[in-house]
Amino acid sequence: MKQTKGAIAVSSSELVEMVSQQLQTLLIAGSYDAVKILLEPVQPVDIAEAIGSLPRTVQALAFRLLRKDEAIEVYEYLDASVQQTLLERLRSGEILELVEEMSPDDRVRLFDELPAKVVRRLLAELSPAERRITAQLLGYEAETAGRLMTTKFIDLKEFHSASQALAIVRCRARDTETVYSLYVTDRSRHLTGILSLRDLVTVDPDSSIADVMTREVVSVSTDTDQEEVARAIQRYDFLAVPVVDREQRLVGIVTVDDVIDVIEKEATRDLYAAGAVQAGDEDDYFQSNLFTIARRRVVWLLILLAANAGTSAVIASQQAVLKEIVLLSAFIPLLIGAGGNVGAQSSTVVIRGLSTKRIQNLGVWRAIWRESLAGLFLGLLLLIGVLPWAWQIGGSLLVGAAAGISLVAITTLAATAGAALPLLFDRMSLDPALMSAPFITTATDVVGVFIYLQTASWLLVHFRFH
Amino acid sequence: MKQTKGAIAVSSSELVEMVSQQLQTLLIAGSYDAVKILLEPVQPVDIAEAIGSLPRTVQALAFRLLRKDEAIEVYEYLDASVQQTLLERLRSGEILELVEEMSPDDRVRLFDELPAKVVRRLLAELSPAERRITAQLLGYEAETAGRLMTTKFIDLKEFHSASQALAIVRCRARDTETVYSLYVTDRSRHLTGILSLRDLVTVDPDSSIADVMTREVVSVSTDTDQEEVARAIQRYDFLAVPVVDREQRLVGIVTVDDVIDVIEKEATRDLYAAGAVQAGDEDDYFQSNLFTIARRRVVWLLILLAANAGTSAVIASQQAVLKEIVLLSAFIPLLIGAGGNVGAQSSTVVIRGLSTKRIQNLGVWRAIWRESLAGLFLGLLLLIGVLPWAWQIGGSLLVGAAAGISLVAITTLAATAGAALPLLFDRMSLDPALMSAPFITTATDVVGVFIYLQTASWLLVHFRFH
Repeated sequence: MKQTKGAIAVSSSELVEMVSQQLQTLLIAGSYDAVKILLEPVQPVDIAEAIGSLPRTVQALAFRLLRKDEAIEVYEYLDASVQQTLLERLRSGEILELVEEMSPDDRVRLFDELPAKVVRRLLAELSPAERRITAQLLGYEAETAGRLMTTKFIDLKEFHSASQALAIVRCRARDTETVYSLYVTDRSRHLTGILSLRDLVTVDPDSSIADVMTREVVSVSTDTDQEEVARAIQRYDFLAVPVVDREQRLVGIVTVDDVIDVIEKEATRDLYAAGAVQAGDEDDYFQSNLFTIARRRVVWLLILLAANAGTSAVIASQQAVLKEIVLLSAFIPLLIGAGGNVGAQSSTVVIRGLSTKRIQNLGVWRAIWRESLAGLFLGLLLLIGVLPWAWQIGGSLLVGAAAGISLVAITTLAATAGAALPLLFDRMSLDPALMSAPFITTATDVVGVFIYLQTASWLLVHFRFH
Repeated sequence: MKQTKGAIAVSSSELVEMVSQQLQTLLIAGSYDAVKILLEPVQPVDIAEAIGSLPRTVQALAFRLLRKDEAIEVYEYLDASVQQTLLERLRSGEILELVEEMSPDDRVRLFDELPAKVVRRLLAELSPAERRITAQLLGYEAETAGRLMTTKFIDLKEFHSASQALAIVRCRARDTETVYSLYVTDRSRHLTGILSLRDLVTVDPDSSIADVMTREVVSVSTDTDQEEVARAIQRYDFLAVPVVDREQRLVGIVTVDDVIDVIEKEATRDLYAAGAVQAGDEDDYFQSNLFTIARRRVVWLLILLAANAGTSAVIASQQAVLKEIVLLSAFIPLLIGAGGNVGAQSSTVVIRGLSTKRIQNLGVWRAIWRESLAGLFLGLLLLIGVLPWAWQIGGSLLVGAAAGISLVAITTLAATAGAALPLLFDRMSLDPALMSAPFITTATDVVGVFIYLQTASWLLVHFRFH
């Protein structure tokens, strides 16, 4: 968690653009003191973005003009590519100081992006304490609490008095991620309680920590998935959650600001899945080149295309009935479109319900049953529009009847599959988002076309329509 | 922001279920003291959920057993429907005390859900101070900072010393939403600076607030959209952001915990739009009945159906070429499917880019141009698979050529439209999410079928294939 520092309230993108332009002018003119004055009231994240939008050649120059403590904070906010540029252009002493002073969690995020060779060199040059912490964090799996946490927290002992504890907070405030959540550990570093700075400043200064702390603590373990960490902080309105290892020893904390980024990333991932786009590591679609973009999209397109090839095969195999009544083909897009839309709706609400944990209260079978009913009901509603239209454009009662009957069958099936497949994937511990709208829609195509043309053949044979 | 209180770390849904079952058994047995012991270590949000899952008849009974200060917190976490049940079952004195003690922001959220008659009665019975605050908050438009904020914050004066300020914090800690962000105002309540409790405990106790506060403050105004408030807190890693009125007077603060819920709600809204589901007020799809569900889905389905009816009309108008070569129809689903998927991908990344503000750096025209190129490139990649398949299944070079040519045209157009339409909507200050995957997919259908059958007719006439 960063400390608050001001900036006048204008839209942040306008502000950044303004700062970036002035910065460039001043740097070219060599007015370095003016740069310092310009950047003084600007928030670190805005400075980082302004530096990121400068030409590469002057980025290091601008960065060197920052105050040392601010430089570290700004560096943590820079994009990975700008961080790398700076590493190449700064002197090795400057780099070392920077990397040494970064928060452990931000350092690990930087190391994730750097080439292994550079990481090894930087690790070797860190102080023993920071090296140990960094190596430890790098050892946890990606997207777990262990990777997300920081090891800079304040731990107190039960025998401390409130005033002693406040003195500890004062003394360590500059070097820690948050001073608002305080943790109490025993001699073997087991987490025994928590208290907030709010509690600490309001209680009698002589009371002992043991008496004012809360003994039952919500904690996560180092291998807890980052999404679950985010849910815990969100659910309980925490500012931070402690992370313990397998022996219940306190090893770090995850703060709310990191969790907000996780929530946004997970939402992007779900949305991308709903649009058949593979989410990247750093979620920066708009900074990747055309080939990276194509790579992230073509796999899903090919899978869906293969399914669609099945639809072509089904139609080709039913060409007898199509030869008889060419106009049957006019309703293929409409029927598979309606089915696809109903199925997409069902999978959307179910996938979102799974990730916000709201579906759990309902139970799997009731959720599927409700969606099937909704699909049937929606199909009947749509029928009112489709039947006369198909009858008129299709030019025969047979086309109207075939389109109407299959419409209701398709929407019911699509809604059932749209609800059941993500739930099945979730049960099998696969990502339910893989069964999102594009997949459901395409699966509906094959089945829908088959139902429609079979119904038409059957009507043609049995009722001698026409 | 709530104060931390413990609960042993098990999965929250298991915990809630366990608590709920034990609670019900104990209530039926009349062991009220055991209920108090059971609930002592449980977090308020978990108690709220456990009470919500009890039969309606015993909810009020369980609620009455809570300690008074805890009852208010639990009440704030209850679902709107359970809050209403309790209002009907508690005595009017109990209700009044409850509503009087709630945070203003949570009270406003409750009043939003209650019938106007009940709100008027409750408002009349509130103390003058709370009535004034509530009426003021209810006056702001929904989904703005004014509606989201709380008026319970700590304001200091510049002439206070750090130790005086700390005394004020101590004294008002119980009655305020957060003690970690402190605000400095002048005599006419204009916001002149901010400081954090972290700053306050670390500075010399004799220094004056004027010397230690930050004068440039990021603030939002009462009519700022809640999504922008969320972006500000997320961007700057704040715990709270001050809200000022038109005269720059400090009127409230929005805290990070409320902002997390906004971020999740906005993500749900975007995801629902991507699945052609209308998002409800309270986002609780799984608690609404079948007719509410149908109402939230049928409007989009009808709009999309109307567009699909256009596709039928296009095919019907081109039936001459279909009569000539029936197998052309076999590739209609494949072509519009591929185009729809590429268009859905483009609209997904653009809409997400707009809502996370990542697209702004790129510029509108470059974003569209990149997507068009991506569409062309992806079309050419898919062509490698489609051409031989269409030639073979279609049984003639004409079908293969028509399918291949139109495939590339359709994917390019779909990607362009998928990027351009959300951006156009954003420019026109409409919600870009309306131009999400389902709409783009359906629009692609009409145009795609037209291009395909026109290409086939043209090839048939000019090259005498067959």
